[in-house]
Amino acid sequence: MQIKKFRREHKLFLVEGAKSVLELLNSSYHIDSLFITAAFNDLYSKILVNKVPFEIVSQKDLERLGEFVSNDSALAIVRMGENTELLLEGNEYILALDGISDPGNLGTIIRIADWYGITKIICSENTAEVYNSKVISASMGSFTRVRLYYCNLNEYLKKRKAPIYGAELQGKDIHSVKFTSSGFIVLGSEAAGVSAEIQSLITEKITIPRYGAAESLNVAVAAAIICDNLKRII
Amino acid sequence: MQIKKFRREHKLFLVEGAKSVLELLNSSYHIDSLFITAAFNDLYSKILVNKVPFEIVSQKDLERLGEFVSNDSALAIVRMGENTELLLEGNEYILALDGISDPGNLGTIIRIADWYGITKIICSENTAEVYNSKVISASMGSFTRVRLYYCNLNEYLKKRKAPIYGAELQGKDIHSVKFTSSGFIVLGSEAAGVSAEIQSLITEKITIPRYGAAESLNVAVAAAIICDNLKRII
Repeated sequence: MQIKKFRREHKLFLVEGAKSVLELLNSSYHIDSLFITAAFNDLYSKILVNKVPFEIVSQKDLERLGEFVSNDSALAIVRMGENTELLLEGNEYILALDGISDPGNLGTIIRIADWYGITKIICSENTAEVYNSKVISASMGSFTRVRLYYCNLNEYLKKRKAPIYGAELQGKDIHSVKFTSSGFIVLGSEAAGVSAEIQSLITEKITIPRYGAAESLNVAVAAAIICDNLKRII
Repeated sequence: MQIKKFRREHKLFLVEGAKSVLELLNSSYHIDSLFITAAFNDLYSKILVNKVPFEIVSQKDLERLGEFVSNDSALAIVRMGENTELLLEGNEYILALDGISDPGNLGTIIRIADWYGITKIICSENTAEVYNSKVISASMGSFTRVRLYYCNLNEYLKKRKAPIYGAELQGKDIHSVKFTSSGFIVLGSEAAGVSAEIQSLITEKITIPRYGAAESLNVAVAAAIICDNLKRII
């Protein structure tokens, strides 16, 4: 807990596991400290050379330092990026997250955005923090390529002129929506969906058609289906 | 732990939380015991009447009995169903899971199947157990409508004549696949994908097109995108 507090005060976050640390080494993030096992060093010494100083430690040490139950590869302590405003530029889509609270869902959404070539996500202030180690872990390295901006989502979206698509129960079937070449996709919280104030800003209500009996879909699953339909048409 | 062992020996499993217990009451599952809070009884007394005997307990008791950190509604101890062989009948699709090990992923896949009207899932023996409480919880009640059959998946699929679609990296773009009216969709394990022996049984290799840089998608997310493409075309 003291380490957690120390990290937050010093604007540092944890990246754990081989896949995520390798992606990190390939990114512009500033690595404050890097701890690796001898086995990881044997496998990736060519990548590590001249990149960043590191210390070889035991698997036990990695597990003590980090939050993974099991980590036999690497752990980095990394400097958080600035919370810089992100704007729609050219033919692109931006995801807008209205209160996604589960870190696993946020990490999965970052990974999905990265798969579909979406590089910007706007988050309401009550969305889970990207630097939470569960978010970083679920993003499978995609946090290095997708930028997030935390702000008052209502104020942010109010100023936008591009179409704002929002997933709601009574919207147009996404299989027949003609998506414009750029815009925003709003995704609501797991428990409450899109908040009333954000709903009023949505210009196109869209719905994933249901063929069976489940009441809803997980929000990350819904994000993926929307992105797949979006890209199919562009 | 003793309770867990007792449950397994007596072929019983746990269902926790209001949403899941309400779906359960609406299903053909045999409820062995039902424990509810007074607040849950106040809300749902009309549904509970004549359904099944229950006992009113405190929230603390529910949390002690179950695996949820917080449960202020209901908990049921339920008899497991038989592991009955499931066959392709008429114009339907069946999901075939080859070693999905994460209970959250399995539960999410059950929920997705239910959304898309798929009612049968065939699981390899090394797939997570459906009666794991994390699977039940992630399925959000959909375990009451989707049946699972655990078997030697290789032996099972070998005997089938319908097309077997499998998600692989070098397959046909799912946006242009013409799915037949019935068949199987194979999904591989989180770590290793589809095993070599099952790969050799796939008749149509399919791929979710990628527009960005993420290396892969979560298996439940991939299942959802495939189901959405499947239903769009049928």
